[in-house]
Amino acid sequence: MSVRIFRGHERVDAIAADDRGLNYGDGLFETILVHAGEPVWWPEHWRRLAYGAQRLGIPLPEEAPLLAEARSLCAGQDRAVLKLVLTRGSGGRGYAPPADPRPTCVLSLHPLPPPAPAHIALRWCDTPMAVQPALAGIKHLNRLENVLARSEWSDPDIFEGLLCDTAGRVVCATAANVFARIDGIWRTPDLALAGVAGIARDWLLAHEDRMEVTVMGRETVESADAVFLCNAVRGILPVARLGARHWPVDPVTTDLRRRLAAAQPAFAFQE
Amino acid sequence: MSVRIFRGHERVDAIAADDRGLNYGDGLFETILVHAGEPVWWPEHWRRLAYGAQRLGIPLPEEAPLLAEARSLCAGQDRAVLKLVLTRGSGGRGYAPPADPRPTCVLSLHPLPPPAPAHIALRWCDTPMAVQPALAGIKHLNRLENVLARSEWSDPDIFEGLLCDTAGRVVCATAANVFARIDGIWRTPDLALAGVAGIARDWLLAHEDRMEVTVMGRETVESADAVFLCNAVRGILPVARLGARHWPVDPVTTDLRRRLAAAQPAFAFQE
Repeated sequence: MSVRIFRGHERVDAIAADDRGLNYGDGLFETILVHAGEPVWWPEHWRRLAYGAQRLGIPLPEEAPLLAEARSLCAGQDRAVLKLVLTRGSGGRGYAPPADPRPTCVLSLHPLPPPAPAHIALRWCDTPMAVQPALAGIKHLNRLENVLARSEWSDPDIFEGLLCDTAGRVVCATAANVFARIDGIWRTPDLALAGVAGIARDWLLAHEDRMEVTVMGRETVESADAVFLCNAVRGILPVARLGARHWPVDPVTTDLRRRLAAAQPAFAFQE
Repeated sequence: MSVRIFRGHERVDAIAADDRGLNYGDGLFETILVHAGEPVWWPEHWRRLAYGAQRLGIPLPEEAPLLAEARSLCAGQDRAVLKLVLTRGSGGRGYAPPADPRPTCVLSLHPLPPPAPAHIALRWCDTPMAVQPALAGIKHLNRLENVLARSEWSDPDIFEGLLCDTAGRVVCATAANVFARIDGIWRTPDLALAGVAGIARDWLLAHEDRMEVTVMGRETVESADAVFLCNAVRGILPVARLGARHWPVDPVTTDLRRRLAAAQPAFAFQE
């Protein structure tokens, strides 16, 4: 794993023990696909990071020097994953944020995960997601819910798990957003109360017709005509199974994947 | 700040960039008062850490070598704060916990915070605490709610803020538990759905009569005959004011403080 750590814009050797990212999860992250030596959807990732930083009151570092560092890490990588972690920096005793925080930024390069099956199997997770409007939508570092949900199964045939909030509304998978087609409309959960607004989800909502953000229960997903997951590393993942429910290969989803790949060639490998 | 970092029981120089504590808040912590060179309430802190580790599925390190390290850090310190952070260790891409985690433990020594006023002033925080039974009660590293709540005010006359959960039930202060006396009974919020079960709170519930764990709303606290906060660093903090509500000095609270100091001499400095 190649890693570069910055305190403000100064390169440093290590994460400080009093970093608020470690002590409180006081920060944000982005998981970015690397393709042909370039971070994919960088502007979209940066925009989400900026929005999260504004929500948490963390000063956003300058973009240009970090992008230059990111590019230099990605150089020569045909396919990889770039992770960016931004924390409020040092100050790990006492919750009050320092008056003049010097954020920490960690850039790390990782191998692409093994390819997903062409049609994935899901399960329902028992771990609920908390309703927390103050944190919903942003990709913050408080991810114990995702960790506990992902710990629920080890069966390698199950690719992902779906989570509901404490009121029983579907939110997302542990590391992806979910779309379910009902009466010709793709519906994806509203994330005002829980969940992370994914970059691939945003792309779909912005570029495709017949998409709707809504509140849905388990039965909506289970009775849908087709279901897929999506995230910024894997693109669109058609779902073949959720518990006892099976779905056939869905030409509409195949078509969506083609249009995503046409718009963003990094996802063309899925074809 | 003196710091010692361990991976398993091996001393290491730095926190790894892929530590799950940093990446997901996947861990726990304890904030321990140091008095006369010794960590105060160590067995109680260790028991809570063990309980949290069991809840999160993090292997608990052996106690004896860590206690020896803690003692050696605390040696010669008349009054200080020892912080212990335990994380699931490395493995920061992908939520699935490693099959064979090697936990990280960070011990750090900090100066005692400035003394609290003899009678403190509180406010209500707007940030709600999420209802999350999977995480309630334990002192995990997902503390953005506390950070956001503590960011709500900078008035130095306000010592602490009280939080309610998303359903309006009182939970705790940003870094303390709360007790309110009604009809001669000290009532403290039930923490099955949110909040951290504090060591000082546990001590009071185990050693004092006329204590009750209950569900309470704001109005219960505001109409109480007396209110105090407590935590393991500061002991019992009598409350003089909450918004417009003022309380006179309360002899019953003074008495409780005396009994705590008699049982645990580290808190005798409050007298």
